[in-house]
Amino acid sequence: MKKIINRPEDVVTEMLDGIAYVHDDLVERLDGYDVIVRKAEKTAKVALISGGGSGHEPSHAGFVGEGMLSAAVCGAVFTSPTPDQILEAIKAADEGAGVFMVIKNYSGDIMNFEMAQEMAEMEDITVDSVVVDDDIAVEDSLYTQGRRGVAGTVLVHKILGYAAAQGKSLEDIKALAEQLVPNIKTIGLALSGATVPEVGKPGFVLEDDEFEYGIGIHGEPGYKKEKLQPSAQLATELVDKLLADFDAKEGDEFALLINGMGATPLMEQYVFANDVSQLLSDKGVKVTYKKLGDYMTSIDMAGLSLTLVKIEDPEWVTALNAPVTTVAW
Amino acid sequence: MKKIINRPEDVVTEMLDGIAYVHDDLVERLDGYDVIVRKAEKTAKVALISGGGSGHEPSHAGFVGEGMLSAAVCGAVFTSPTPDQILEAIKAADEGAGVFMVIKNYSGDIMNFEMAQEMAEMEDITVDSVVVDDDIAVEDSLYTQGRRGVAGTVLVHKILGYAAAQGKSLEDIKALAEQLVPNIKTIGLALSGATVPEVGKPGFVLEDDEFEYGIGIHGEPGYKKEKLQPSAQLATELVDKLLADFDAKEGDEFALLINGMGATPLMEQYVFANDVSQLLSDKGVKVTYKKLGDYMTSIDMAGLSLTLVKIEDPEWVTALNAPVTTVAW
Repeated sequence: MKKIINRPEDVVTEMLDGIAYVHDDLVERLDGYDVIVRKAEKTAKVALISGGGSGHEPSHAGFVGEGMLSAAVCGAVFTSPTPDQILEAIKAADEGAGVFMVIKNYSGDIMNFEMAQEMAEMEDITVDSVVVDDDIAVEDSLYTQGRRGVAGTVLVHKILGYAAAQGKSLEDIKALAEQLVPNIKTIGLALSGATVPEVGKPGFVLEDDEFEYGIGIHGEPGYKKEKLQPSAQLATELVDKLLADFDAKEGDEFALLINGMGATPLMEQYVFANDVSQLLSDKGVKVTYKKLGDYMTSIDMAGLSLTLVKIEDPEWVTALNAPVTTVAW
Repeated sequence: MKKIINRPEDVVTEMLDGIAYVHDDLVERLDGYDVIVRKAEKTAKVALISGGGSGHEPSHAGFVGEGMLSAAVCGAVFTSPTPDQILEAIKAADEGAGVFMVIKNYSGDIMNFEMAQEMAEMEDITVDSVVVDDDIAVEDSLYTQGRRGVAGTVLVHKILGYAAAQGKSLEDIKALAEQLVPNIKTIGLALSGATVPEVGKPGFVLEDDEFEYGIGIHGEPGYKKEKLQPSAQLATELVDKLLADFDAKEGDEFALLINGMGATPLMEQYVFANDVSQLLSDKGVKVTYKKLGDYMTSIDMAGLSLTLVKIEDPEWVTALNAPVTTVAW
């Protein structure tokens, strides 16, 4: 393992101190906890929180700020945060109008966020949540019943964060989340595995000329390994799978996110984007919002994912375009 | 070589089309050229342009937008753009108040940008420039007389971009650039080499437990190879070298940029930032601006660089904090 770290067991705490140091104008670390909170003034609005295992940076701490998350809970690498940590995030984020939790669909995350919700409710904080399950690659997986939650989660943060900033109620945000999440679908591919610092070697190994479709953000198995193909062919597979899952028709409107997994340079992401643009244009679908970069990574995995959001309400595009004060959006 | 690309010889043109597609709200590709220009209305202010070889994304196209660059010229990978391409960028960017070019110190870049300047002047466009040579690692290098221009260049874009947006004259911007550049110093390290698509293998290879101090952004040799050390020790070497080069004293004020080289995840960059924060605090210097992420990369190289700017004028910090409409700042 070749990494710029100190002791592997200290990576998360030192990373969080690093985040708090570099971005001390926007966020701070909750004293004694693995929680990053925003410094913005409290305004009695619904607080949005998220989190999960570390290793997906900039998710989720990079999306803490006005217009997105109030707080992010950061578990050990690829490990759900504990209920007590989530509870502290809820308490720190609450402005009196309730707290809404965005949870990625992993069994451990759901269990721990729900436990924290019960604990918070005993302290008279109203909490609700949504589970994001945007990864269409496989049903059920190593740590998941149903579909996994991946890069599309960041778009949920953005759209719900806008609603919260607009002063929407907890009930309205819950309703919006339930309308939004089924309209977000993602599929990815990996060229290499990720190395968890405390493990010291990649979670899986691919041959020099091999890649895998549908891999998860913790290295969960995908649906097919093949010899590496040109970008245009990779794009065709991902676009076709997504549009089929949407049952998309000519004229349908989408937002698009191309997400790097950590070690794939922007050069390759933009080449891939160019191929995607051709394919979507050929299919006659409209793309009214686009974003590209490393948003939901898998440490140092090489690969990328493609997310489409079917736009059912033009307000979602307004929300995606609204300015925020986060580090990473 | 395992990359998400089509034909290696098409990487730059497809990447530029990808950039223009994803960010069509902010920038466009100059028809028939490898130039990205901003879509903002022309306002008779000085136009700032930059560029160089491709492979440093998001540099430089990611910094095209209001408040930073008017245009970026994108050469072949790790290869200076040709004078005719630079000339087109100058002509497209010019708003009648002159064009200022930010050039990284590589012999090919200087020759070609200067040739383009002469061609532009024959078309009655006033052009001036600054050469950025922030890399203190080595004097003279593979493609350079003197010190190389690296990540600090992005801070030059930002500070001069602010001055241009404020309506400063070409003379004022030249004077600011000449005051600013000697106050910017960078030093980096690499854990792996970068693979140029048309070459197909890494420019250099390091052993599994080895890294190199002072490597350039095109894989130029550094000043020392060693067995990999903990982040705190790496940070000590880089901070000490920079502060010695500045002849820094307690109370001196700096801006800081930690820059990922392409394949080094944010996790490691933030761990390193935490170590840097300790060291700078111990030395008693003030850090009034901080930034971290992938800004001047070397394709898929693993590694990072540390840049310090000695703040001689508080306006520089104002400039660094001013909002922009770029993709990548």
